[in-house]
Amino acid sequence: MESMMIYMPIAMAILGLIYMWIKKSWVLKQDAGDGKMKEISDYIYEGALAFLSAEYKLLAIFVVIVSVALAAVSFIVPTTHILIVVAFIFGAVFSAFAGNIGMRIATKTNVRTTQAAKTSLPNALKVSFGGGTVMGLGVAGLAVLGLTIFFIIFYNYFMGGAEGVFSVDKMTIVLETLAGFSLGAESIALFARVGGGIYTKAADVGADLVGKVEAGIPEDDPRNPATIADNVGDNVGDVAGMGADLFGSYVATVLAAMVLGNYVIKDMGGSISDAFGGIGPILLPMSIAGIGIIISIIGTMLVKIKSNEAKESQVMAALNLGNWVSIGLVAIACYVLCKWMLPETMQMEFFGEGLQEISSMRVFYATLVGLVVGAVISSVTEYYTGLGKPPILKIVQQSSTGAGTNIIAGLATGMISTFPSVLLFAGAIWTSYAFAGFYGVALAASAMMATTAMQLAIDAFGPISDNAGGIAEMSEQEPIVRERTDILDAVGNTTAATGKGFAIASAALTSLALFAAYVTFTGIDGINIFKAPVLAMLFVGGMIPVVFSALAMNAVGKAAMEMVEEVRRQFREIPGIMEGTGKPEYDKCVAISTEASLKEMMLPGLLTIGFPLIIAFVPMIFGMDNLAIAEMLGGYMAGVTVSGVLWAIFQNNAGGAWDNAKKSFEAGVVINGEMTYKGSEAHKAAVTGDTVGDPFKDTSGPSMNILIKLTCLIGLVIAPILGGHNADESLSDKQEIKKEVRLEIKENNSETAIATIITTTTINGKTTNYIEEVEGTIKEIEKKANEAGNVVSVNIVKKENKIEAAIK
Amino acid sequence: MESMMIYMPIAMAILGLIYMWIKKSWVLKQDAGDGKMKEISDYIYEGALAFLSAEYKLLAIFVVIVSVALAAVSFIVPTTHILIVVAFIFGAVFSAFAGNIGMRIATKTNVRTTQAAKTSLPNALKVSFGGGTVMGLGVAGLAVLGLTIFFIIFYNYFMGGAEGVFSVDKMTIVLETLAGFSLGAESIALFARVGGGIYTKAADVGADLVGKVEAGIPEDDPRNPATIADNVGDNVGDVAGMGADLFGSYVATVLAAMVLGNYVIKDMGGSISDAFGGIGPILLPMSIAGIGIIISIIGTMLVKIKSNEAKESQVMAALNLGNWVSIGLVAIACYVLCKWMLPETMQMEFFGEGLQEISSMRVFYATLVGLVVGAVISSVTEYYTGLGKPPILKIVQQSSTGAGTNIIAGLATGMISTFPSVLLFAGAIWTSYAFAGFYGVALAASAMMATTAMQLAIDAFGPISDNAGGIAEMSEQEPIVRERTDILDAVGNTTAATGKGFAIASAALTSLALFAAYVTFTGIDGINIFKAPVLAMLFVGGMIPVVFSALAMNAVGKAAMEMVEEVRRQFREIPGIMEGTGKPEYDKCVAISTEASLKEMMLPGLLTIGFPLIIAFVPMIFGMDNLAIAEMLGGYMAGVTVSGVLWAIFQNNAGGAWDNAKKSFEAGVVINGEMTYKGSEAHKAAVTGDTVGDPFKDTSGPSMNILIKLTCLIGLVIAPILGGHNADESLSDKQEIKKEVRLEIKENNSETAIATIITTTTINGKTTNYIEEVEGTIKEIEKKANEAGNVVSVNIVKKENKIEAAIK
Repeated sequence: MESMMIYMPIAMAILGLIYMWIKKSWVLKQDAGDGKMKEISDYIYEGALAFLSAEYKLLAIFVVIVSVALAAVSFIVPTTHILIVVAFIFGAVFSAFAGNIGMRIATKTNVRTTQAAKTSLPNALKVSFGGGTVMGLGVAGLAVLGLTIFFIIFYNYFMGGAEGVFSVDKMTIVLETLAGFSLGAESIALFARVGGGIYTKAADVGADLVGKVEAGIPEDDPRNPATIADNVGDNVGDVAGMGADLFGSYVATVLAAMVLGNYVIKDMGGSISDAFGGIGPILLPMSIAGIGIIISIIGTMLVKIKSNEAKESQVMAALNLGNWVSIGLVAIACYVLCKWMLPETMQMEFFGEGLQEISSMRVFYATLVGLVVGAVISSVTEYYTGLGKPPILKIVQQSSTGAGTNIIAGLATGMISTFPSVLLFAGAIWTSYAFAGFYGVALAASAMMATTAMQLAIDAFGPISDNAGGIAEMSEQEPIVRERTDILDAVGNTTAATGKGFAIASAALTSLALFAAYVTFTGIDGINIFKAPVLAMLFVGGMIPVVFSALAMNAVGKAAMEMVEEVRRQFREIPGIMEGTGKPEYDKCVAISTEASLKEMMLPGLLTIGFPLIIAFVPMIFGMDNLAIAEMLGGYMAGVTVSGVLWAIFQNNAGGAWDNAKKSFEAGVVINGEMTYKGSEAHKAAVTGDTVGDPFKDTSGPSMNILIKLTCLIGLVIAPILGGHNADESLSDKQEIKKEVRLEIKENNSETAIATIITTTTINGKTTNYIEEVEGTIKEIEKKANEAGNVVSVNIVKKENKIEAAIK
Repeated sequence: MESMMIYMPIAMAILGLIYMWIKKSWVLKQDAGDGKMKEISDYIYEGALAFLSAEYKLLAIFVVIVSVALAAVSFIVPTTHILIVVAFIFGAVFSAFAGNIGMRIATKTNVRTTQAAKTSLPNALKVSFGGGTVMGLGVAGLAVLGLTIFFIIFYNYFMGGAEGVFSVDKMTIVLETLAGFSLGAESIALFARVGGGIYTKAADVGADLVGKVEAGIPEDDPRNPATIADNVGDNVGDVAGMGADLFGSYVATVLAAMVLGNYVIKDMGGSISDAFGGIGPILLPMSIAGIGIIISIIGTMLVKIKSNEAKESQVMAALNLGNWVSIGLVAIACYVLCKWMLPETMQMEFFGEGLQEISSMRVFYATLVGLVVGAVISSVTEYYTGLGKPPILKIVQQSSTGAGTNIIAGLATGMISTFPSVLLFAGAIWTSYAFAGFYGVALAASAMMATTAMQLAIDAFGPISDNAGGIAEMSEQEPIVRERTDILDAVGNTTAATGKGFAIASAALTSLALFAAYVTFTGIDGINIFKAPVLAMLFVGGMIPVVFSALAMNAVGKAAMEMVEEVRRQFREIPGIMEGTGKPEYDKCVAISTEASLKEMMLPGLLTIGFPLIIAFVPMIFGMDNLAIAEMLGGYMAGVTVSGVLWAIFQNNAGGAWDNAKKSFEAGVVINGEMTYKGSEAHKAAVTGDTVGDPFKDTSGPSMNILIKLTCLIGLVIAPILGGHNADESLSDKQEIKKEVRLEIKENNSETAIATIITTTTINGKTTNYIEEVEGTIKEIEKKANEAGNVVSVNIVKKENKIEAAIK
């Protein structure tokens, strides 16, 4: 059984995909409503596919360019294998495919949800959440499937699989090559998130500014030429963007945990003997991911309501039930898997503290940290962005004195919200590290991500319901239909905010795990910010998320302006459009959003990918030492991560808070003792706040996740060039290992002596010394000195291993 | 002459203060105008003094509490001397005194500027700039005087002055004690900046919201009860706040450079022989500061215009002339002083690269880096916030579609502006470090700060002119008077923005120098962010500026609301107030601003001071290793600095950009082909942007400087507790130094041998090894091994220094 564990994640992934297929067939079998509804739904479907195919064309070019670059690198750098190109391409294709599945099912489910809402609310939830489930399982299933298949292929290719002889160095090559898969996935995620984010907000702002404000027609009115683009945007941004984001996180987390698992084996002397072919610590994160798929299926089955009179709170409770049960089951699964798959105690190298004995239970505690963080961050997000919560009420009050004070209050709310969030992350880093080193940090992230399928199902049902409401409006259904979809939409808005919290928490932990994997890969002895170039790069890294956000916001502004012009033109030139007799040219608006978003995502993308490459290769051209470059790049990565997490929390929560402050006016709010509603001056101020918040929460804020993950992944892929290249080239002239045994008879015991074994490693003139004191006869000491090889924890090949013994 | 150099800075400071006194007498001799003008001026003067005395009462309590705490620490920790309390108190008193001088002269100069503007523009500039000069020289003179006097006192007390025997360790105690002076100065600066920032914006918003918007009366109308508070605010925030900020920077920069100068001497073997009592590298930064005062006086003398018809550009040119000449003179002075006071070549320890030979010319190049950064950052700031520049024009255009798009454009501008600024800082860190290590970084900051008196004169004349315009308005002068003061005010707005750029650049470099001094003080071997607790603290540190900014912004909101209520009450209750027959109760508004700002500055202050203390002492209670804590605190400091610099640039520039976008409408702007003026919808949107920008640029943004400097200073003051305490206590049980000479006859030359000298240092189980290869006879090798003591660069006392030689 144990030896088959390597195939377990594949089996689970396939099970998940089969369940997805069944669920998909069920959703598609549902009634898609009358002709008008189908027509609108088809417009959205086609618009979404038009965006996807335009995006894919562009991404294909990108994938080709990067593949060529990676291939070139693999020819120049001996430690990088050409197979990384294959992994990269498949990572990109799998990610795109996952997004495609999500988008297709979402745009098919929306109209069916509208139709189901005609009969009852429980049915509407069943259909919309069914669509979300398909999306969630598609993403998680493909992620686990792809990663596991490529791992097995590379494991067999480079090492001969379970029959081969395990070697940490060979496994490092396996995982380095596998990093290509993650890089491919994350690259697609970048463009999906940023492009989608620009698309959705450009269409939204364009539709609102001309439709609602200038022409005075309601939201989702079919006379508005941008209304289809607006609904497409919900799918492009919230469904495909979020899906690609979590697909990337999922793959990167598991990969990073596997890399660190390999280093656990290294710290334990280079090999362990367990029932899992000696790679238990590497298989564990994959196994948690595999089990997580099945647990997510169980979780989604629990999400249902019975009463047709249910309100938001009951729908929310149903989602929470499914969510909590799946988190609980993951905790149990982690306990079982940690106990079963890990050695009872492991040795792990703690930086500056030497080797420590870590029990498998402590690894389990680390996974609990991840589960707690995932749960708590949702509550924190909920507090700062939820309807009726103090921060929102405060923003509402500040709206009474105008847009200026509303904006200040919203900004302050987003900024303050970094306080508990960052303390939570800092605590998580510290405790999971204290439990089980960076392997613990990576497994905390893995455990948190195990319920990704469930999280995505909860996330995706929101925009589906939003779309369903739009279709109800456009096809002029009975008000009860819109009321029911509105209940789902309102819950969806809350889950969207908490989902962003989950996404940023996962991105933060994933980046740290990648960061740790990077440091270990390169073989540098840490990132010392007391070195000025490293400190300078910490500054530069910190600046990148800020500039990236600005670029994304400006991109929304530009794209929205183009949309505004087009909508104005149609209102002006198409006769009878306002009377409902002339037909708006929806496709032109869809085309504008598509083109503008793809064009505008270039610059932020270039910034993300270009900067780490410049930092790595420009100093290399000037002959800077590779390890010094590696440390600088590490400083850059840390800067991007810290600043990116801060700006993500700030922007997501400020945006969410403004949104719900505006929504508060729909039910009416008490300001200075008076009930105030939509249309009041205070409401107008709140609408202004929401305009500012839109790009914050839907474009620049969520893009931060990808920015930090992709930055760390690029670092990881470059790592062998910096570290491996160096080790290889400078072996003969710059690196030297000496081992010597110096004996001093401290206790004059005639038979035994106390000896000090010193292992000295000199790399590029920098010397590290490991000292071990042993007691015994000369023979015994010589034996121990021979065994002491594994005290050298730097990632190098030993050239000289001569032992000298002498008694002074 | 050389031996007297230690007194040179005192002489220069006294010369500066004498010139200040002459200039002050001249200003006070100018005509203060008619009765109405005097009355208004007196109101402002009294309001400002009321704020100062209320603030001083509060600060006195704070100083007492901190003094008691410092005294307690000095009794417990043997490496901290009780004299630090004296230094702290004097630092606080000097800083407060400098602020007092500035505030008094500014509130006396304003009315005299109004009066002078009745005669001509050149006269008005002469008077207002004269007031600024008094302020600048007061701040710089007191800073240099205080720092130098205390240095000489401690130098004589701890080391017997120039006659005593120089010892790096004793000088460390001198400088550690001197750090108290800097801590005192910076603590006062925190409250002056934050309290002043809250005061000025609360009064401004209160006056505008009720006066301009609700009652429809113009700015500075005497019927507005908050108008005096508004004018007081300009002095409290822009004059006293900025003065205290730069006083703090000035002192901290020079101190940090002295600390690093001491370590240069250490790297050179513990002593040097030069004509300056062996402390040339320590005296150099003080000497640059001293000469800088005289150069600033020359610079201020050049600021004058001749034509009464001059426009903004001519006034600006006059200021630029003075500024550029003084920067040029500082460059020359730095060349001479570096050549004269430093050894021709020095050894400096570069982290991870060992000792390097650094010529005095390279130190001079580092000072040039500082001068260039100071100049370039002003241009960058000018580009992003200047009237008529592309970013401003873009915000103006975006105002046409409402407040939402105006806000987004302003935010994006502030965010984008971090790009060149951070690259500039990163480049400065890197190059100045490459030239002369962290000593170079500190001297870059020192050179930049040398013209502080000139910078402050340029800065302070702005709010003085602003006040002068207000007095002209309130006392109903001829329009020409207001026109002339408006020209000065417009130039003042530009210099205010560039001054903020200068302040943040100086704060950034100062913090880095303090950071470097901290690391060296504690004796840790760098800040390794690959250790999870350090990384966690980097996150926490990064969060602090964000939360601090939010608290400051909320504080402005709360204080402004109280002001709004009071102004409304007065309009309601005082009969005839709108007709000009009833007299508004100005003092009540002043009192409200004063109380509210002092109350609201508590929480941000607590955050700033409390967090580093928690990080240092809570883990200590739990028995964590002191050096590990020191490294964590270093991570925290780096996080605060990186994030603080980013948020300072973002907030200052966004605020400045919104302000000038609004101002653009005064002269009219072309939007979509139409001239648009004040009162248009677009202008209203721009006013909303300015409302958001006000607390950004005048409260939270400028406070970042103090936050980062104070954080690093607190770290520096705690350093001996963490580092010194540890070295002291653990010497016997945890630390071990071994030196051994291993000889291998590599070349069989019968007479000579090649030997390897290995110095092994083990601190808390962590081993570092220094290897040196020497060639010679056994005698010679033994001699060299004996001399090799200084290759151990960690800050520890050697216990065992036995050398063994043997030939295998």
